[in-house]
Amino acid sequence: MKLNILGCYSATPRTFTNPTSQVLEINNHLFLIDCGEGTQVQLRKHKIKFNRIKHIFISHLHGDHFFGLVGLISTMRLLTREADLHIHAPKGLKEVITLQMKLSNSWTNFNLIFHELNSLDSELIFEDKKVEVYTIPLDHRVYTNGFLFKEKEGERKLDMNAVLNANIDVAYYRKLKQGFDVENQAGKLIKNETVTLAPEKSKSYAFCSDTAYKQAIVNIIKDVDVLYHESTFLEQHAHLAPKTKHSTAKEAASIAKQANVGTLILGHYSTRYDDLNVFKTEAQEVFENIELADDGKTFEF
Amino acid sequence: MKLNILGCYSATPRTFTNPTSQVLEINNHLFLIDCGEGTQVQLRKHKIKFNRIKHIFISHLHGDHFFGLVGLISTMRLLTREADLHIHAPKGLKEVITLQMKLSNSWTNFNLIFHELNSLDSELIFEDKKVEVYTIPLDHRVYTNGFLFKEKEGERKLDMNAVLNANIDVAYYRKLKQGFDVENQAGKLIKNETVTLAPEKSKSYAFCSDTAYKQAIVNIIKDVDVLYHESTFLEQHAHLAPKTKHSTAKEAASIAKQANVGTLILGHYSTRYDDLNVFKTEAQEVFENIELADDGKTFEF
Repeated sequence: MKLNILGCYSATPRTFTNPTSQVLEINNHLFLIDCGEGTQVQLRKHKIKFNRIKHIFISHLHGDHFFGLVGLISTMRLLTREADLHIHAPKGLKEVITLQMKLSNSWTNFNLIFHELNSLDSELIFEDKKVEVYTIPLDHRVYTNGFLFKEKEGERKLDMNAVLNANIDVAYYRKLKQGFDVENQAGKLIKNETVTLAPEKSKSYAFCSDTAYKQAIVNIIKDVDVLYHESTFLEQHAHLAPKTKHSTAKEAASIAKQANVGTLILGHYSTRYDDLNVFKTEAQEVFENIELADDGKTFEF
Repeated sequence: MKLNILGCYSATPRTFTNPTSQVLEINNHLFLIDCGEGTQVQLRKHKIKFNRIKHIFISHLHGDHFFGLVGLISTMRLLTREADLHIHAPKGLKEVITLQMKLSNSWTNFNLIFHELNSLDSELIFEDKKVEVYTIPLDHRVYTNGFLFKEKEGERKLDMNAVLNANIDVAYYRKLKQGFDVENQAGKLIKNETVTLAPEKSKSYAFCSDTAYKQAIVNIIKDVDVLYHESTFLEQHAHLAPKTKHSTAKEAASIAKQANVGTLILGHYSTRYDDLNVFKTEAQEVFENIELADDGKTFEF
């Protein structure tokens, strides 16, 4: 998995910082998560091919998380895209986008498929052979979801020495990888675990922005490898967090600790702060493994 | 008058070029003309105070001319703007903006006043003591207007030597400036033109983008000091101009010549071209006084 942070600052785009958008590469998928104004330029800057993006996930309908979407779609149209584009977003976004396409008399030639979200429970919203995506209902001023991306467990690996020693016909290898016991060429049942190795651990990533501290998400994101959790405020402004339905760095760290995540990436910083390191310092009082998101930064895990 | 080009390239925002937007400063007004994606960042880059903008003019509802508006309004709200904001734009834009404000549950505290345009004739859409703004109906794939900004003629200037020699009471100076004849202290009628000088020539600016070659605009923009006219194409792609309803550099120059303008500024270049100087060369075959717009360039006149 590779996570490319295109923008991770709250509120308004500025000369040197961008509103929320990130690209998650996982098993050859390129998932775009949120799409603040200027996202298409950030994609160009980081040389990410628009055509590789087939699924876009929008957390909520505040401008700093979706104002760049209509422009991105419009540019995909001008680039004569043909592939379907799936947009998973709160109910209402379809109307916003289609109204603008209609007024500009520029409907896309590719299929624009909206999957409008309105459930208050976590639900599976995408699945293929290798990846599942679930919503993470968050607590913000408007209807908001985070997203949980999970690689499915891979196939077991053949322990080739053991397989050959056990004298198993090559026709059974597929079944072995799938975890079945099989008969060898002498008709003897061979226990799967004696000739195969466990699959590589599947990776998982949870994106949680924007949200007030919400203890209920801990169960959904339990044990993920990487959690991106918003931390709009430092302790000195902790009183603003409940009112604006945002979190502090410490609250994000508390969620990470309870969920036993591998790494916590902080982001969605209020633009009032100049020194991001204080976010890390404050979060590390609660949870050790902290990374700071920043525009243009890439994480591989 | 001062014209600040924030963006002047067609179609899609790129890392180093921006879609259409410009700021015209005239008699202490700051008029924003078109508002492609990223305009608010361009405004910040050029240190133009958002609060000084009271009137925004949108030529047409193609994305590269208005996708930045909702973000700009949203940022003005976050900056706790109080002053009214007037938006002069084709019918339909109000619905686009208000729908997004509604969905994000973030209505502005300041008045957002839409003046929706749908006339096919040139009309006066703004007027105060010093400035008038008229639409310039253009020929594009959707309903489109250019805008003509005209300083009103100023007051006559007192020729102080002549005024004192003529023995005119100071109470009559105001009337003199307004062009009236007045009586002097001896009761003799003094002809205005013998004691005053003509006002400074009032300036005018016409913005024409996007449009196919349209001869009918010549009468509307006759004798303007500065004309910005789109020139999407060079001669080698002249065949694309009528089809896409855009103009070539030569066509823009032909309009400038017929309208007897002072200076023609070219812009809205197709992003297929690397060397802008060819636009100037081709246009100068028809009309001498050509300037090339570029992002960040400022013109004073």
